[in-house]
Amino acid sequence: MLRADYSDQNCSIARTLELVGERWTIMILREVFLGVHRFEEMQRNLGIARNVLGARLERLVESGILKRVPYQERPPRSEYRLTAKGVDLWPVLVALLKWGDRHAAPAGPPVVLEHSGCGGALDDRRRCERCGEDVEPWDVVARPGPGVARPRATVQVSA
Amino acid sequence: MLRADYSDQNCSIARTLELVGERWTIMILREVFLGVHRFEEMQRNLGIARNVLGARLERLVESGILKRVPYQERPPRSEYRLTAKGVDLWPVLVALLKWGDRHAAPAGPPVVLEHSGCGGALDDRRRCERCGEDVEPWDVVARPGPGVARPRATVQVSA
Repeated sequence: MLRADYSDQNCSIARTLELVGERWTIMILREVFLGVHRFEEMQRNLGIARNVLGARLERLVESGILKRVPYQERPPRSEYRLTAKGVDLWPVLVALLKWGDRHAAPAGPPVVLEHSGCGGALDDRRRCERCGEDVEPWDVVARPGPGVARPRATVQVSA
Repeated sequence: MLRADYSDQNCSIARTLELVGERWTIMILREVFLGVHRFEEMQRNLGIARNVLGARLERLVESGILKRVPYQERPPRSEYRLTAKGVDLWPVLVALLKWGDRHAAPAGPPVVLEHSGCGGALDDRRRCERCGEDVEPWDVVARPGPGVARPRATVQVSA
């Protein structure tokens, strides 16, 4: 009766939450999708404790959602990239974003996702509202929206 | 540097997580979508502490995601129903389910979502793989899938 996890739930939602449901994990994945791959920049953007960020990244690597890719030899430094399994979390992030835009963004969406090249907005089935195409994460540009307070540059979403 | 929430993140993902990102909240919403509306049955299905369940339900009602609907007068008893804002979380649940089916269900999906009447499976854009229609939550039946251990009856998803 005092279980702290979902381990006896034979449910794909519960199993997903076991891997990505910890506080901050989804925000870390947002950063990686937006092209932030290095510890220091993530820490600065999220403002979380370094030990928490380190533990969450470690768990994401263990789960096969992120992988470490070396970018410097001396001293050795790695950055974090999405695996194919990690890229598959894109629909989860878009679903959370779309709900928040609709129900928790009184000043309008802080970020707008657009179909790269075409410029149409994404609907909540990740289709382009302009051309009707199914949009994949590598076909998306994230732009500051009307609700933005501290604008980030427009970025190509990066998987 | 030791913030425990996402309150300074001007981000629709963060704001959604503030409302539904607490442990167990998504599992409670799964129950309601599957037609479980009463405290005792939720508590039995989820096996969580009563005080935790009570606190999560309270917060979902305060956030306007669930509403209390009386079903008995003496003694007064209410059940929990999704509001329109709550029904809009359907894409989040399907996205979590689909990822878990793909990456965390070695014995196959415990639950399969089908287009009611048509019988086609839902793809990860919530379209029917058989007839191609966009499927809404009230057009869905949840059936035990190949990975089920403790089968539940087939249920009409209930919003």
